[in-house]
Amino acid sequence: MTEVVAQLIEALGDAVSVDAAQLDAAQADKSGHRSGSSPLAIVTARSIDDVQATLRIATQTRTPVVTRGAGTGLAGGAVGGSGEIMLSTLAMDRVFEINSSDLLAVVEPGILNGHFNDILAEQGLWFAPDPASKAISTVGGNIATNAGGLLCAKYGVTRDAVLGLKVVLPDGRLLTLGRRSVKGVTGLDLTALMVGSEGLLGVIVEATVRIRRAVPGTVATIAAFYLGVRDAAASSAAITAAGLQPAVMELIDPHVLRAIDAFHGSSLSQRGAAHLAVQFDGPGAENDARRALEIITRLGGDADLTTDRDEADELLAARRAAHGSLAALGTTLIEDVSVPRSALPDMFDAIADIEKRYGISIPTLAHAGDGNLHPNFIFDGPEVPDEIWDAAGELFTAALKLGGTLTGEHGIGVLKKRWLGDELGDDQLQLQRQIKQVFDPLGILNPGKVF
Amino acid sequence: MTEVVAQLIEALGDAVSVDAAQLDAAQADKSGHRSGSSPLAIVTARSIDDVQATLRIATQTRTPVVTRGAGTGLAGGAVGGSGEIMLSTLAMDRVFEINSSDLLAVVEPGILNGHFNDILAEQGLWFAPDPASKAISTVGGNIATNAGGLLCAKYGVTRDAVLGLKVVLPDGRLLTLGRRSVKGVTGLDLTALMVGSEGLLGVIVEATVRIRRAVPGTVATIAAFYLGVRDAAASSAAITAAGLQPAVMELIDPHVLRAIDAFHGSSLSQRGAAHLAVQFDGPGAENDARRALEIITRLGGDADLTTDRDEADELLAARRAAHGSLAALGTTLIEDVSVPRSALPDMFDAIADIEKRYGISIPTLAHAGDGNLHPNFIFDGPEVPDEIWDAAGELFTAALKLGGTLTGEHGIGVLKKRWLGDELGDDQLQLQRQIKQVFDPLGILNPGKVF
Repeated sequence: MTEVVAQLIEALGDAVSVDAAQLDAAQADKSGHRSGSSPLAIVTARSIDDVQATLRIATQTRTPVVTRGAGTGLAGGAVGGSGEIMLSTLAMDRVFEINSSDLLAVVEPGILNGHFNDILAEQGLWFAPDPASKAISTVGGNIATNAGGLLCAKYGVTRDAVLGLKVVLPDGRLLTLGRRSVKGVTGLDLTALMVGSEGLLGVIVEATVRIRRAVPGTVATIAAFYLGVRDAAASSAAITAAGLQPAVMELIDPHVLRAIDAFHGSSLSQRGAAHLAVQFDGPGAENDARRALEIITRLGGDADLTTDRDEADELLAARRAAHGSLAALGTTLIEDVSVPRSALPDMFDAIADIEKRYGISIPTLAHAGDGNLHPNFIFDGPEVPDEIWDAAGELFTAALKLGGTLTGEHGIGVLKKRWLGDELGDDQLQLQRQIKQVFDPLGILNPGKVF
Repeated sequence: MTEVVAQLIEALGDAVSVDAAQLDAAQADKSGHRSGSSPLAIVTARSIDDVQATLRIATQTRTPVVTRGAGTGLAGGAVGGSGEIMLSTLAMDRVFEINSSDLLAVVEPGILNGHFNDILAEQGLWFAPDPASKAISTVGGNIATNAGGLLCAKYGVTRDAVLGLKVVLPDGRLLTLGRRSVKGVTGLDLTALMVGSEGLLGVIVEATVRIRRAVPGTVATIAAFYLGVRDAAASSAAITAAGLQPAVMELIDPHVLRAIDAFHGSSLSQRGAAHLAVQFDGPGAENDARRALEIITRLGGDADLTTDRDEADELLAARRAAHGSLAALGTTLIEDVSVPRSALPDMFDAIADIEKRYGISIPTLAHAGDGNLHPNFIFDGPEVPDEIWDAAGELFTAALKLGGTLTGEHGIGVLKKRWLGDELGDDQLQLQRQIKQVFDPLGILNPGKVF
């Protein structure tokens, strides 16, 4: 046992684990990426005090710390490796306050997004950020990556839902950032800076988040099938351009649709090659859906519309079945480019071009209402082949050229580090590193990630 | 003429002014605060190049630079003083792009918010941030202060509408921050950090902002009168707590209502002591307004409801007439505390208590839907008397105790510097200063402001 682990155990007792299976699990996240070797120990913090004690020992001993929630990241941002302390906030999962008058809640970072929403639903409330992983991902992890999801164009990304944060700095000091009021402009907005900072600046130990009243009225859902993916993308862009604002607009390309059929024994592909699901909520839902249906039909879609919630769940089932169906095909690298919404058809053309030149399939899902695409690369074995990275690199370049970004909602982690400078430019990259240094002068928080 | 001014004139020609009247005007903003002496010169930049040239000279000569838009600030954040270059972005007022497909626009910082909205309205579009000053304030200034306004609870503050920024650093380097897509999580969110940074970090020279489609359907407006301000505040809190989301909810206290009557010859005070205006938009507007009307009536309000737009303008006219009416009473210090919405009645109690103990009136307006209050202190002469500052200090302390903030939308500037540490705490204040140093190592951007 190293001296650091001995110190952790002395300070934190059975919150510290060196169990081989747990250390092994901490080497990976849901991206498929694994670090080369296991971390020193896992501290499962039960309180802010535990986080502070861990970070003080880390600072004294200059030991790197990787903060982790449920480990559902898709960019390798929270994987632990050699010589590192893995600091888990998963057991800090209390809800301290649900305030329906002020539409805010105060929670610990480890609460699962889905569980939090179940609790809120009992009071007719909800938390809008809804990554596809919400059943298994934590609110703290959502904040650390500024997670997106299906509802962002209408209901915002995670950053829009965070009012205030408690954060422990690497030296153990506790900061209280932000506020409980709707507005506030006192000093620089460090709350916004923490959101999406991927464990580089501090450890989020409490969050004051904006919650919403459940949206009243009908939900109107359209499931549309198209001859090709470009037509589906053109419908999506046309719906946005017509001034309609769906709550959900999800696109599935032919590769993914066939994978769903293969895995679930369904026959969706017989209705069309590509699929677009569009859902409207709120008092204008039905009217908006009828307008969207006209656009879809005019652009060649074969579509059904329902205002029945159970039927709607069935119509959206294809989208939910997608990730599992792809995983059955091989190891999956899920990419995450995002482009302006009108550029969605062009981005699909760029993907088709890369597929052709590399002789590969790139099954793609898209949060079409946000212009956020998840092209998937499927391969054998645990390591991403170089050729796949080359193709992914071309994908990123294409997204940047269209005015987009190389990651819409997953983050940089370790997997996208090499392209970071392409998007940010040298001057901004330097500035970002310097800001990191202000928070973490010893460089012990999540080293080797992002930068 | 100093050497610095000579260099500026050599590089920038007639963009540089040392006209005494202009220099004098640059010593003040709309807060009533004046600096002790006039700046060296005013550079009215016409382009990014001009901004870069100015900042390079400033860096070489270690000359402080104060960036200014229309000078409508209410915290002294953009007033120029001795030895400083005033850098105006008011002439950089072009609209480069209005993109209705992607619901974004690209503008220069000097465009007036109201003018920008006039241009957007021609295409059925709008820019949601709407400070009360929008007819005379710039989009760049709105961004630099993270300006609020009347519509924030429903449509967000300025930060929520900024996708990307071009920023010139003090050494003249041009940074491109953010993106054109709905989502994006590449690196630290420096766009969000720039919003509300009050000229401390860099000069905003271009902004990519989110725009919206005009909200279709009816607008339903309620004007309610109450016996006392606490009843009006309780109605506002009850409307939010009932899950209703007005676009506008504005409260006027008895002092302000009487001032409006005195200035405009109206007789509003005869209908009630305090006034609450509530406006709903969107497809559920009428239904929501009827529910709000029930709450208002139950809580003692005497109210009218209209769905006629012209009548609505009349009902909201009292709110618009408020600032001018107060200015007629004497020099006005407009404060800007913000509290959680349910704390609005308690905040009015705290104001009443301060009024009693100091023997003064504090006429107060509130963006009640946001919990953002503008208590006004009226006095004679140009300087804020010490006793008024003492009373304002108690106001800030009361807001902080209620979980609020000392500035909801005006910023810290010079006027609220002394209370900054009370809200942020020493550790955060230190961190904020260090971040400032990363952007501006020589400390030449807006020195003496905020920190």
